[in-house]
Amino acid sequence: MSADEFAVIRELFAPLATHAGARGLVDDAAVLEAQGALVVTTDAIVEGVHFLIDDPIDTVAKKALRVNVSDIVAKGAKPVAALLTLVWPNARPSDEIATFARGLGEDLQHYGVALIGGDTTSTPGPLTVSITLFGQPLGSRTPARTDAKPGEQLWVTGRIGDGWLGLMLLQEAPAVLGAAAADRVGAHIDALRAAYRTPPSPLAFAPIVARYASASMDVSDGLIADAAKLASASGVALRIDAEAVPLSDAGHAHVSAHGPNGLLELLSGGDDYQVLFTAPAEARGRIMDESRAANIDVALIGDVLDGAGLWLVGAGGAELALPGGGHVHKLGS
Amino acid sequence: MSADEFAVIRELFAPLATHAGARGLVDDAAVLEAQGALVVTTDAIVEGVHFLIDDPIDTVAKKALRVNVSDIVAKGAKPVAALLTLVWPNARPSDEIATFARGLGEDLQHYGVALIGGDTTSTPGPLTVSITLFGQPLGSRTPARTDAKPGEQLWVTGRIGDGWLGLMLLQEAPAVLGAAAADRVGAHIDALRAAYRTPPSPLAFAPIVARYASASMDVSDGLIADAAKLASASGVALRIDAEAVPLSDAGHAHVSAHGPNGLLELLSGGDDYQVLFTAPAEARGRIMDESRAANIDVALIGDVLDGAGLWLVGAGGAELALPGGGHVHKLGS
Repeated sequence: MSADEFAVIRELFAPLATHAGARGLVDDAAVLEAQGALVVTTDAIVEGVHFLIDDPIDTVAKKALRVNVSDIVAKGAKPVAALLTLVWPNARPSDEIATFARGLGEDLQHYGVALIGGDTTSTPGPLTVSITLFGQPLGSRTPARTDAKPGEQLWVTGRIGDGWLGLMLLQEAPAVLGAAAADRVGAHIDALRAAYRTPPSPLAFAPIVARYASASMDVSDGLIADAAKLASASGVALRIDAEAVPLSDAGHAHVSAHGPNGLLELLSGGDDYQVLFTAPAEARGRIMDESRAANIDVALIGDVLDGAGLWLVGAGGAELALPGGGHVHKLGS
Repeated sequence: MSADEFAVIRELFAPLATHAGARGLVDDAAVLEAQGALVVTTDAIVEGVHFLIDDPIDTVAKKALRVNVSDIVAKGAKPVAALLTLVWPNARPSDEIATFARGLGEDLQHYGVALIGGDTTSTPGPLTVSITLFGQPLGSRTPARTDAKPGEQLWVTGRIGDGWLGLMLLQEAPAVLGAAAADRVGAHIDALRAAYRTPPSPLAFAPIVARYASASMDVSDGLIADAAKLASASGVALRIDAEAVPLSDAGHAHVSAHGPNGLLELLSGGDDYQVLFTAPAEARGRIMDESRAANIDVALIGDVLDGAGLWLVGAGGAELALPGGGHVHKLGS
C-alpha cells in the first residue's frame, strides 16, 4: 500500500507522534536522545495466534502495546517511546485502520508513550502487529531473569488466569469450562474478555521493581512455564504455593468447579502480562506497603531455593503434578 | 511455538548476540547504553510482497537487514545493533530457521551489527520478518527528508533499476521485458537476481552523507516516487536529469530495447535501497573525491528548485511524462 501507506501514516498516526525525534513520521528513521541506559523490547501479535480474528480492532492495537509495556515494567523501567510495525491484510477493510489508530492513541496516552516511527505494509496473510518499546530505567540496574538467589521470595502482580478464562469464553467455553462452570465464570464475562483483549499492565509497579526486584520478567506464556524459565536462567529452584497465587472471583469459581486441575489450567494458561519477580526476604514489608500505597495488587507466592526446576505445592504442602511433564523438579543440596 | 521458540532462540540466534546488552537473548528486554543521539528505524518484509516465496531463505534474512541498513546509512549513521521479529509460517519447515540464522549472521558480521533481542512467533500466514535497527550518528546532525534547499544538487548512490529487473526476471520476465530484451538483460541474470534478493547497501557512504547531505532518504519505492516524497517533505521542486541516473549494463540493455518507457520503468521500479540526497553545490568536488576514494558509485542527477513537485527531464531538456500521473509538476517563482 505504498501511496496509501503514506496518507495513512500522515493522517492517522502522525498526531500520535508527540516526540520531537519522531520527525512527524515523515522521515525514514527516528532520533532518540538518550543519556545512559535505554531498555528496549519487541513483541509481535498475530491474528489467530495472539488475538482472535473478531476481536475489536481498537483492542488489538492496545494489546500490541500492552504485551510490550509489561516487559518494560518487569525491567523496572518507564515506557517512553514506541515504533509500530503494522502488517495489514489485503482483505481487511482499510477504514478499520482509523479505529486501530484511535485505540493505539488512547493507550499511548494512558501509558505516557510517544510514537516515534514505524512501518506499514500489506499482507495476503493475517493481521500482524509488532511494537518495539523503549523504556527509561527507574533504578541503577535493570533486573534480568538471571538474578534470583536462594533465600529470596517469589512474587507476582495482579490476578493470574483471567486472560486464559477470557480466551476460553470467547472461543470454546462450553467444551473446556463445562456448562456449569461456564455459567458461574460467565457471570464475569465482560471483565474476562477484557482481560484477554486488553490485559492490564501494572505500569505503576515499575518503581517497586526497580527498587526491590532481583530477577524479574513478565508472565506471558503462563505462570508455570515462565517461572520455570526464570528458575532455569537463574540456576535456582522455585517453590510456588499454588494456593497463594492470586485469582479473581471468576478464577475462584473456575477452581471451585474443577478443583486442582482447574487451578493448574489458570496457572498454565498464559496471557496474564503481569510481573513475576524475586526479592530479598527483608524487602517484604516495604514491597507490601508501597504496593498498597500505589493501589497495586501483589502477592507473595513462593521461595527461591538451591537446586533446579519448579515445585508446585498445594494444600498441606503436597506437590502437585505439573502439566506438560517436561520440567525438572529437583530440589538441590 | 512457545517451547520451541526458546530452543530456537538459544541455539541459533544467541551466537549472533555479541553485544553485552543483549543478555544472551535470555531476557525479555535488551539494554542499550547510549550517549547522545541514537538513530532508529524499522522495516518489515513480507513473503509475496517484498520477497518471493521461493527466494532462498538466507537471502530473505539478508534482505530484511539490508532494507534497514539503507535507512540508517541515508541518515549518515553507522548501524550498530538490531532487534529481530521473526513471524514464521506453520507450514514452512522449521529446519530452514538454521539457514535463515546463518544468512543473518553473515550479514550482521558484514555490516558490523550485533543482534540484541527480538521475538519469534508462528503464523498461519506468510513469512514476515521485521527488523529494528539502531545507528550511531557519524555527524552532529541527522539529515531528514525535509532539509533540501533550492540551489542544492540532487545525488543518488549505486545503480537504479537492477532490483526491479531482478524481480521481473524472477517473476514474469518474458511478458514485461519482451523476449529480445529478456535475452539481453538475462545475460546479467545472476547479478540482477542478487540485486533483488540481497540489495547492496552502501554502508561506506554513511560518513559522506553525514558530512555533506542536507536532505537524505533511501530509495525503496522507486526513485521517482521517493524523490517526489523528498520534494514534498522539503517544500521544494526537484528536477531530475533522466539520462544522468546511473544504470548498470543490464539497465542500459533494457533501455535500448524499450526506449524512454524502459527508462521510466527502471526509475519507478523500486527495490533499489540506495541513498538519495541533496547537498550544496560547493560540496560537489569533495563528494566526488571522497566517494571515489571510498570506491562508491555516486551520481549527480539533478537540482533542487523553488516550487513543488518533480520534473523529469530527458534528452535535450524535454520534460518526460511521469508514470502514475499523480504528481504535481509545478516550477515556482
